[in-house]
Amino acid sequence: MPNITVELLAGRTLEQRKAFARAVADQAVEILGARRQDVRMVFTEITADDVANGGVLASEDESRAGVVAALKKG
Amino acid sequence: MPNITVELLAGRTLEQRKAFARAVADQAVEILGARRQDVRMVFTEITADDVANGGVLASEDESRAGVVAALKKG
Amino acid sequence: MPNITVELLAGRTLEQRKAFARAVADQAVEILGARRQDVRMVFTEITADDVANGGVLASEDESRAGVVAALKKG
Amino acid sequence: MPNITVELLAGRTLEQRKAFARAVADQAVEILGARRQDVRMVFTEITADDVANGGVLASEDESRAGVVAALKKG
Amino acid sequence: MPNITVELLAGRTLEQRKAFARAVADQAVEILGARRQDVRMVFTEITADDVANGGVLASEDESRAGVVAALKKG
Amino acid sequence: MPNITVELLAGRTLEQRKAFARAVADQAVEILGARRQDVRMVFTEITADDVANGGVLASEDESRAGVVAALKKG
Repeated sequence: MPNITVELLAGRTLEQRKAFARAVADQAVEILGARRQDVRMVFTEITADDVANGGVLASEDESRAGVVAALKKG
Repeated sequence: MPNITVELLAGRTLEQRKAFARAVADQAVEILGARRQDVRMVFTEITADDVANGGVLASEDESRAGVVAALKKG
Repeated sequence: MPNITVELLAGRTLEQRKAFARAVADQAVEILGARRQDVRMVFTEITADDVANGGVLASEDESRAGVVAALKKG
Repeated sequence: MPNITVELLAGRTLEQRKAFARAVADQAVEILGARRQDVRMVFTEITADDVANGGVLASEDESRAGVVAALKKG
Repeated sequence: MPNITVELLAGRTLEQRKAFARAVADQAVEILGARRQDVRMVFTEITADDVANGGVLASEDESRAGVVAALKKG
Repeated sequence: MPNITVELLAGRTLEQRKAFARAVADQAVEILGARRQDVRMVFTEITADDVANGGVLASEDESRAGVVAALKKG
């Protein structure tokens, strides 16, 4: 504990996950006073067809097209 | 907010998701007084091997065979 | 199934929940082809101290002050 | 209800899922007094690249290598 | 891992939770081959106003009145 | 997106939450390339009676007594 779930659009590299997991664990230890070994993080990838904002799927949402395209390029 | 998660058996079309996301956002605005841009929905697809009712996986459950078969046909 | 989770800021009335649960079940039956008895919805209330957008708790976020205040008045 | 979510590393067989779902439903009936038909279980499989403990992904974590390897062998 | 979440109606005793946590950990070790120390369980209590089946809140649902009343008596 | 859920033992101060939300948003922007306004974080507090490790509730677990006591003192 803390048990942290990170729901994110598919497309991040393994290196990004590793760096993010390490950085957040550092912050949990420093700010929340957690024991490092108790910090757990799970990544859940979703696609732009799985999420809607304001009733519009991200894959159909022009205001998010830049974000989605950037992830697809990797 | 609200942040809505919809766990459902695989097999719905993209059109169904789009229509459902829109319809639920409409209701959230009208009934809950949410701002449309704050309504977020995430779909999580699961298979009939991922869910059990009464201790029986849906893929083994004859009382649900009709539902599962209908989704597989699309 | 579908199993729907609705995370929302505290402050909605029981009547609002009832109407929203009914309306979403109607849409799940009509749009997703679900059996009515299989539609499950769980509400999870959170407070403005429990959620942050862009790294800022909603309770500290002036751009959301109107939403939070409206819910507190009921 | 209860609604039980089981997040586990990929690699268990369908037979293991079936046996686990049945055994947990039995315990929910006996210990929690649940009605059998109300016990729902969902399995969510994750990979060793999806979970980090102490800031280290399981796929990079030598102390968990034995667990991960055993699951890969099936 | 496994990480198990148990969403249940409020009203179970601490003894019931303890017994259920122990029994499920036993099954996870025996059936899933988990290491005992890796089995994590979180209980989330909800009330009959928080859950709807078929579009009807459990607190309004006569077919569930027996279950809800039994839990309130403790 | 990312949508980050932080399940943690009750007892952290509002200042700790604020600092953690800000720090994690910073990392999400820097490491994951997220847009700051898309980073969402929800805190879910649980008690030592709500979580079991290895089949033992944290409130009964002597190896975790130090962690739990430190949080109770605030």
